[in-house]
Amino acid sequence: MHFSSDNWAGAHPRVAESLLRHASGYERAYGAGELDKAVAQKFAEVFEREVEVFFVATGTAANTLALTLYNRPGGIAFCHREAHVVEDECGAFEYLSGGSRLHTVDGAEGRIAADRLDRAIGRFVPHVVHSGRPIAVTITQATEAGTVYSLDQISAISAVTRKYGLPLHMDGARFANALASLGTTPAEMTWKRGVDILSFGGTKNGCWCAEAVVLFDRSRAEEFSFLRKRGAQLFSKSRFIAAQFDAYFADGLWLETAAHANRMAARLADGIRASRTARLAWNPQANEVFAIVSKATMHKAFDAGASFYDWHPPQGFAGEIGADEAMCRLVTSFATTEEDVDGLAELIA
Amino acid sequence: MHFSSDNWAGAHPRVAESLLRHASGYERAYGAGELDKAVAQKFAEVFEREVEVFFVATGTAANTLALTLYNRPGGIAFCHREAHVVEDECGAFEYLSGGSRLHTVDGAEGRIAADRLDRAIGRFVPHVVHSGRPIAVTITQATEAGTVYSLDQISAISAVTRKYGLPLHMDGARFANALASLGTTPAEMTWKRGVDILSFGGTKNGCWCAEAVVLFDRSRAEEFSFLRKRGAQLFSKSRFIAAQFDAYFADGLWLETAAHANRMAARLADGIRASRTARLAWNPQANEVFAIVSKATMHKAFDAGASFYDWHPPQGFAGEIGADEAMCRLVTSFATTEEDVDGLAELIA
Amino acid sequence: MHFSSDNWAGAHPRVAESLLRHASGYERAYGAGELDKAVAQKFAEVFEREVEVFFVATGTAANTLALTLYNRPGGIAFCHREAHVVEDECGAFEYLSGGSRLHTVDGAEGRIAADRLDRAIGRFVPHVVHSGRPIAVTITQATEAGTVYSLDQISAISAVTRKYGLPLHMDGARFANALASLGTTPAEMTWKRGVDILSFGGTKNGCWCAEAVVLFDRSRAEEFSFLRKRGAQLFSKSRFIAAQFDAYFADGLWLETAAHANRMAARLADGIRASRTARLAWNPQANEVFAIVSKATMHKAFDAGASFYDWHPPQGFAGEIGADEAMCRLVTSFATTEEDVDGLAELIA
Amino acid sequence: MHFSSDNWAGAHPRVAESLLRHASGYERAYGAGELDKAVAQKFAEVFEREVEVFFVATGTAANTLALTLYNRPGGIAFCHREAHVVEDECGAFEYLSGGSRLHTVDGAEGRIAADRLDRAIGRFVPHVVHSGRPIAVTITQATEAGTVYSLDQISAISAVTRKYGLPLHMDGARFANALASLGTTPAEMTWKRGVDILSFGGTKNGCWCAEAVVLFDRSRAEEFSFLRKRGAQLFSKSRFIAAQFDAYFADGLWLETAAHANRMAARLADGIRASRTARLAWNPQANEVFAIVSKATMHKAFDAGASFYDWHPPQGFAGEIGADEAMCRLVTSFATTEEDVDGLAELIA
Repeated sequence: MHFSSDNWAGAHPRVAESLLRHASGYERAYGAGELDKAVAQKFAEVFEREVEVFFVATGTAANTLALTLYNRPGGIAFCHREAHVVEDECGAFEYLSGGSRLHTVDGAEGRIAADRLDRAIGRFVPHVVHSGRPIAVTITQATEAGTVYSLDQISAISAVTRKYGLPLHMDGARFANALASLGTTPAEMTWKRGVDILSFGGTKNGCWCAEAVVLFDRSRAEEFSFLRKRGAQLFSKSRFIAAQFDAYFADGLWLETAAHANRMAARLADGIRASRTARLAWNPQANEVFAIVSKATMHKAFDAGASFYDWHPPQGFAGEIGADEAMCRLVTSFATTEEDVDGLAELIA
Repeated sequence: MHFSSDNWAGAHPRVAESLLRHASGYERAYGAGELDKAVAQKFAEVFEREVEVFFVATGTAANTLALTLYNRPGGIAFCHREAHVVEDECGAFEYLSGGSRLHTVDGAEGRIAADRLDRAIGRFVPHVVHSGRPIAVTITQATEAGTVYSLDQISAISAVTRKYGLPLHMDGARFANALASLGTTPAEMTWKRGVDILSFGGTKNGCWCAEAVVLFDRSRAEEFSFLRKRGAQLFSKSRFIAAQFDAYFADGLWLETAAHANRMAARLADGIRASRTARLAWNPQANEVFAIVSKATMHKAFDAGASFYDWHPPQGFAGEIGADEAMCRLVTSFATTEEDVDGLAELIA
Repeated sequence: MHFSSDNWAGAHPRVAESLLRHASGYERAYGAGELDKAVAQKFAEVFEREVEVFFVATGTAANTLALTLYNRPGGIAFCHREAHVVEDECGAFEYLSGGSRLHTVDGAEGRIAADRLDRAIGRFVPHVVHSGRPIAVTITQATEAGTVYSLDQISAISAVTRKYGLPLHMDGARFANALASLGTTPAEMTWKRGVDILSFGGTKNGCWCAEAVVLFDRSRAEEFSFLRKRGAQLFSKSRFIAAQFDAYFADGLWLETAAHANRMAARLADGIRASRTARLAWNPQANEVFAIVSKATMHKAFDAGASFYDWHPPQGFAGEIGADEAMCRLVTSFATTEEDVDGLAELIA
Repeated sequence: MHFSSDNWAGAHPRVAESLLRHASGYERAYGAGELDKAVAQKFAEVFEREVEVFFVATGTAANTLALTLYNRPGGIAFCHREAHVVEDECGAFEYLSGGSRLHTVDGAEGRIAADRLDRAIGRFVPHVVHSGRPIAVTITQATEAGTVYSLDQISAISAVTRKYGLPLHMDGARFANALASLGTTPAEMTWKRGVDILSFGGTKNGCWCAEAVVLFDRSRAEEFSFLRKRGAQLFSKSRFIAAQFDAYFADGLWLETAAHANRMAARLADGIRASRTARLAWNPQANEVFAIVSKATMHKAFDAGASFYDWHPPQGFAGEIGADEAMCRLVTSFATTEEDVDGLAELIA
């Protein structure tokens, strides 16, 4: 009963088999091989337009280099207060951008509130050197709170970024889960709604290590190629990432694994709704469930072998958490089974 | 007949199978899993002492973060003029170290000359802020020229670094090839000869992506853990690196593949020695062969489907290259066959 | 009637004359001259202990290099939400520290609340690489709100920094004004209350350009000397800073000019207390007065030639500002006259 | 008899008096005052075209920020092997550019050889990420060797930079000395010969601290304003720099002081030519004289109170230096007198 994180799972068998299948033979290094090109073409099909795709090693690399592509001296990037880029990446953005800053914006359930974003950006008067200057906005889809931005909410954010002439980045570490949740298309969830650059994550959804930065503005591709190499993120045997994505997209595997993870989360949420010792902190929309659980129940579950995190409540969380209660985060993945979910639900009934 | 680079090959079957074997089940993320721990223990056995091991994504990351661990403001790291860190890493060291500098030192056949190193470091007067200050020395084993430092040559370098109180880093992108060439032990080729920190590369020798920084000075391990995370180099599903190293070390696979690549290079060198249109630029000691080839022969080989690089002669190369000749680099790997070698030898006979 | 900023004034005549007096003759460059040494000794007397003093060009340089001295990868420095270092320095800290982060803490009237600071630092779990790690705390004395920390309030802050083993930096851009306000000694307001490093500003209080970083921990002096040079902050003709400080400290000029500026601010505050169209936002304690003024009155004053800033109310300001009112900042200096103050007071009566 | 450096002198009386004269009254801060504007206009007259002028604190700041203005990831800037920016600025360029690199080029007597520059830049193949990419070339006028580039030599350098589409920076720490030496105009020595950006130094030639970056490409001015502020180089009381330049340009003071220093150097060179124990290393063209002096004579001069530096011979210096000889650097300035020169000449006769 592992609900600690979707990165505690390994790789989906079809991803692992693809690596084995592509292990022999020669390919040009550094992304110039045939498989790399075929996978880049596959990305273009998935997004219904020409795109530039760059593999990198980690989601942190994807986020920070994507934002760095739009960096300028004195730069300020805007993110949600609970965003991974500010909470969980050890200052990689500040470091790899050469010293730009993240400015956090609040909003309920992990989503930036568009009006607050507007006010936050509006505080920076153009041409005034003292305060620095906005360079980009980043949103996370699905959010760190296990919720998703609706298409209209994405449009509301991009209306603000367009107002200020700023690029919009999407951290898609759980892109597929959000897509499955909304039942929309990759194009609709990104560039058709104003997203300029995307961190496309496959790792949490069944790959070993498959993270890509997708540029909808292809004019910046050469610049990004230098950013990636200088950032020590250019794989020599790039095809081992390509081989993972090849299997990931084949026959819709990625949507299948994401939909499965979401279903498992929904099933778990149902279990929590029925519990007497636990309740949902808010309604989950993807593969992360946040619940307020009595500490006695939590420890009982731990003792029974369940793994999940006793979580820090988000700053500004409006709900109540009793002294004998804890907020818990429960994450599902492609590998989660109904038995795991029902077993946990029973433990916290 | 692929001799372009050892990173044009894929993965050794036993490495690829290991990934498949470890794909299922749950493991703690970010290097805290059981397989990670077992592989770390394996490193300790290989090096005959306690070490700290950190997986990173690329050789560039390994080199630059290893040197950054010893960085100070105004820092100067010394490397060979043809070193990968200065020639082929797009300024990653300067970038990731926050702006320290590489100072190149000459020396024949890819090796830093110890006396030149001594003079180069000696130019920096302690406590004088204007010129900056030495922070580290890095040597490459095997070198970019396909040669290796003998154990005594390593000792001569470390005598200089000890004189100035500097740490010694070894770029071991082709560590196994050097080891097989010298017929010595990992311990003897590193810490017993004064190496403080090592970039241990598995990628070029049969892995997909298996690079590690090995710290012999364990007191700096916590610091390195922050450097790695901040540098966007901490894999979540770290076991996919561990699984590669697990197969790499098992039953001496790594030494076997390296010895094979070296043998193929030696066989190719013999072919070149017998050629009338090509000659060795210098004697190879590992898995890279540098030859001076008539341009007509080179193009004939290209036309026949052979792949290798028309190479920039090293600055200071003392040999003669005629106007109708080119320097060529020919690299062998675990995947190179005798048929490939003999086929190429015939083309350039 | 200039109340825009204390840096709109020029230099005190005794400072300007000192520069003229020291213009001729030869002195060793880069701070090694006799006058530099004499002034360093004067700092030691002022602070009643041995200190290390480094001149730099700007207050921004002083703050950012002082904090950078304590930097570590993934570093987080804590400051008040309205601090100059985060609001008015264009990201210089993030840039010059090589990518560390400022974490803002709230507190009324420009002062960090010690309990909030404690909670903010406490959120960072030691050894967890994801969130980064605290490196320092900085307070501003006098604050950006024109208030001062009492000695007990400084002690409360340093109790928190000691609890977490962090250094405490004081941004003393208006150090003399705070000192005059509290009627205490430099030693008492700094190292005796737990301050480890100080930005000591003379520019706003009658110098042309006289900013120094004062290290109470002298063991870090050599490191700082490299930080300063690398940061392009080492003046060659360093004596032109020394000459200013020489006059600044002579016969207590610095305390006299600061006390004068504070008195002018108090006189202005009295004027505002008596006004029917303006009121104090809070009680000033140094040389900055914040008032809520009717817009009609503000524009009348502007039209009459008064200069001051229509100011952004601090985030979290609890007072009320009507739709036809504005918050204004009014700054006095050594050059402010009673006539200026009374003239303005009349305009906003 | 002070010949250690032109920065051991103080300030010219007319510069010091200008500071005193401008000390009173109010001016807008951060360069927005009337005197700043007047001085900017004066720069435009001096250079016979519209320019953008930015004051900074040090020559190191001027050089590094000027080059940083043209920085790109993986950037390589080309300079002479003995250039101040690489030898004497503690890595400030690498640091402040966010990790770009200096690539040194040789050339006799302190000047970059245009053909070597061409070959050095030509080694970098466009679009190849591994090696990084050229971003700028910097030359020093007058050079660190006390020589000057002729106008044709500047044109030869800029022909190379134009060939590769690179900007050309001039380090003019001793700009006036070079100008006086060539007897040409500022326009002719810079933008008319292909210089895009200039570090204009006044400090060594009679100011306290007067360094400016002059942009001939005005479109980059806003970007530079953020670079300067973020680099902690924006003076609040900017008029104290303006006041120095105001006097510097008035009645041709700057050309007069430079011509004087050059004359003193020429007089000293004549003395050395007549000496039996010293000889010129090469012919001086500005205000620095390099001589090879018998050690006995050198120590006799030191004992008699003369100050100058026992200098590191430039790498690649073709002349001979005996075991009992030393290379010495002797620098003159606005403050050097004929008596000083003749006194020294007598000591080393």
